[in-house]
Amino acid sequence: MLQISKRGENMPASPIRKLVPYAEAAKKRGTKVYHLNIGQPDIETPKEVRDAIHNADFKILEYTHSAGLESYRKKLSGYYHSVGINVDYNQIIVTTGGSEAILFGFMACLDPGDEVIIPEPFYANYNGFAIAAGIHVVAVTSTIESGFALPPIEEFEKKITAKTKAIVICNPNNPTGYNYSEKEMEELKAIILKHNLYLFADEAYREFTYEGKQFSAMHLTGVDDHVVLMDTISKRYSACGARIGAFVTKNKDLLDATMKFAQMRLCSPYLEQLAGEAAIDLPPDYFDVTKAEYQNRRDLIVQRLNAMEGVYCPNPGGAFYAMAKLPIDDSDKFCQWLLESFNHNNETVMLAPATGFYGTAGLGRQEVRLAYVLNLTAINSAMDCLEAALKIYPGRIV
Amino acid sequence: MLQISKRGENMPASPIRKLVPYAEAAKKRGTKVYHLNIGQPDIETPKEVRDAIHNADFKILEYTHSAGLESYRKKLSGYYHSVGINVDYNQIIVTTGGSEAILFGFMACLDPGDEVIIPEPFYANYNGFAIAAGIHVVAVTSTIESGFALPPIEEFEKKITAKTKAIVICNPNNPTGYNYSEKEMEELKAIILKHNLYLFADEAYREFTYEGKQFSAMHLTGVDDHVVLMDTISKRYSACGARIGAFVTKNKDLLDATMKFAQMRLCSPYLEQLAGEAAIDLPPDYFDVTKAEYQNRRDLIVQRLNAMEGVYCPNPGGAFYAMAKLPIDDSDKFCQWLLESFNHNNETVMLAPATGFYGTAGLGRQEVRLAYVLNLTAINSAMDCLEAALKIYPGRIV
Repeated sequence: MLQISKRGENMPASPIRKLVPYAEAAKKRGTKVYHLNIGQPDIETPKEVRDAIHNADFKILEYTHSAGLESYRKKLSGYYHSVGINVDYNQIIVTTGGSEAILFGFMACLDPGDEVIIPEPFYANYNGFAIAAGIHVVAVTSTIESGFALPPIEEFEKKITAKTKAIVICNPNNPTGYNYSEKEMEELKAIILKHNLYLFADEAYREFTYEGKQFSAMHLTGVDDHVVLMDTISKRYSACGARIGAFVTKNKDLLDATMKFAQMRLCSPYLEQLAGEAAIDLPPDYFDVTKAEYQNRRDLIVQRLNAMEGVYCPNPGGAFYAMAKLPIDDSDKFCQWLLESFNHNNETVMLAPATGFYGTAGLGRQEVRLAYVLNLTAINSAMDCLEAALKIYPGRIV
Repeated sequence: MLQISKRGENMPASPIRKLVPYAEAAKKRGTKVYHLNIGQPDIETPKEVRDAIHNADFKILEYTHSAGLESYRKKLSGYYHSVGINVDYNQIIVTTGGSEAILFGFMACLDPGDEVIIPEPFYANYNGFAIAAGIHVVAVTSTIESGFALPPIEEFEKKITAKTKAIVICNPNNPTGYNYSEKEMEELKAIILKHNLYLFADEAYREFTYEGKQFSAMHLTGVDDHVVLMDTISKRYSACGARIGAFVTKNKDLLDATMKFAQMRLCSPYLEQLAGEAAIDLPPDYFDVTKAEYQNRRDLIVQRLNAMEGVYCPNPGGAFYAMAKLPIDDSDKFCQWLLESFNHNNETVMLAPATGFYGTAGLGRQEVRLAYVLNLTAINSAMDCLEAALKIYPGRIV
């Protein structure tokens, strides 16, 4: 009998996608499902970006440079400067989604058995990349009671071993929406300097902050060799299917090593690099409009959630996610029940159980993540469903 | 001091790209460089494929299914049936280039420390994927004297250990152009059955065979659980920059495991999946035209090479590569010298030293790989350069 590898067995199935069959069954029964379970925005990809695709002038869909089109990297450098991140174009490697930037970082900085510390709850796919790279994720718990602020730095200290090589910070955070402050980022700086660690900064949601600006890991001074920015155009320009990201660092040795991984897979997709290039030329008010839309949605969803009996939702400062504590026995059961056994005027809502975002077993059983990627009317209807559901859910607890 | 990981240090730099600075310097001096060093065809991406991009009807560049657009997978299934490979669409996972299919196969079937046997010379990036996956490539030598036929199966037997999990066969072969016969494929079948191994089949060049058809690993019977097809549209439709490939197997457990790797990175690029879909609708004579062009090029380059004193080039049955033995001391030195110290009427040629394609140190020092990706006129001029160069190269040997 042929065997699957151990890492193939250990690779986690997507915690969000495991509910998909139940959603499909609900739809087949004629029930409308509001998808607040996944970060796929309903915002249109900007026309300028679509035009760049439609007008792409090429005869041969050729390999690009393994680091990405030079013209794109130069534009990206300009974009980064515009947000106070002073990097040269040759400090940027274009990646196939933010996903690949994370995988490259794990592989180029850590060896099998090494450890990376991540505040939990965290983006579930970090687990997958860690297993692919043979490394271990060590979780430090942030709590809904604190609004998912950075855990006390002593909690990080307690988890540091000889195997610890890096800390990952997703800012603004997926799944919590927390926007880390300059003070918190300075605390991280102190600990990475003290223990000689990399700081991997996933800043996919940089532009989506609602009270004050994002403070980038790249704004920290004196840690140029430590900081690796793992970026993506997916959310910024509502272009998730483009699979264009970036690996950015001022650490020359790390750039050289990562370039070898980039050469291995030849290049990132050509057409979407053109799309990324066009996105940088969007008018300056582009983010104002999308951000205002997301902020209205956030305000609505947070207000609706906190108005429900027994529900608590801290106000997320960024990204387009909210975490809510519900009066339920088990978020996995509840989310499945919403799809399998419930409807409200023939509608229901799909949420992401928070258990999949925690590294520590047993945490998140009363929490769900809501992605406010639908318009205000849809969010209101989805909240009507959730409110009605919580009143009759058999596993409701006090 | 922050450290790069060991695998980051061990990751090989691309053996082809290391000559790039010398080529750039030659061009700056005004020397025309014929690029026979890399498999980037000059054939236009079919208009139908480009039209699919230009007319792509979408408002949001969304995530696709992690296994790829269902419509594309269904079309791919039809394509495979047309070449005698009977796979269902749900036995196909669309990957980001053939590169990702190789990486997924290595990761899902092998654990760190496991071994994969590959006839050498082989596609150099297999080394990179092996290091990323923490596995070892064990080479079995094929020789230019035999035209790079499959080495005697006893040579494989000698290399099999408890750690051996798979054999990789690239057919038609990059870099040798060898087209493995049905008899050779049956020999591989016997050994994978005997030792319970996977057979990874890289068939990027399936359509480009000049004497008889390609015999796919998927044409073998009774080894459905063993065979994994690692495919790509890059060469087939001259769409290298699309980064669209496929991981194909009838092994259900392996598909399930590989899907988790696919979910980890969310999806492959959306637009190029549309391109891949359009390519399947190309008229049936599409490959006749491109194949005839490649065959003319092959005939010319092989004739020109063998007419040079001291040069031997076996006639490659497929792909668009030829390997030639030259009367030189060292192919790395020679290829660099061609760019750095030689020109013929202000022109020169860039070749790939074969050393980068061998796993065994010291092999390939008198061999080069030539990619016949340029038109007949350019190939003739490039061969004029090579012929003149061999007459005056200081490291010429008898």
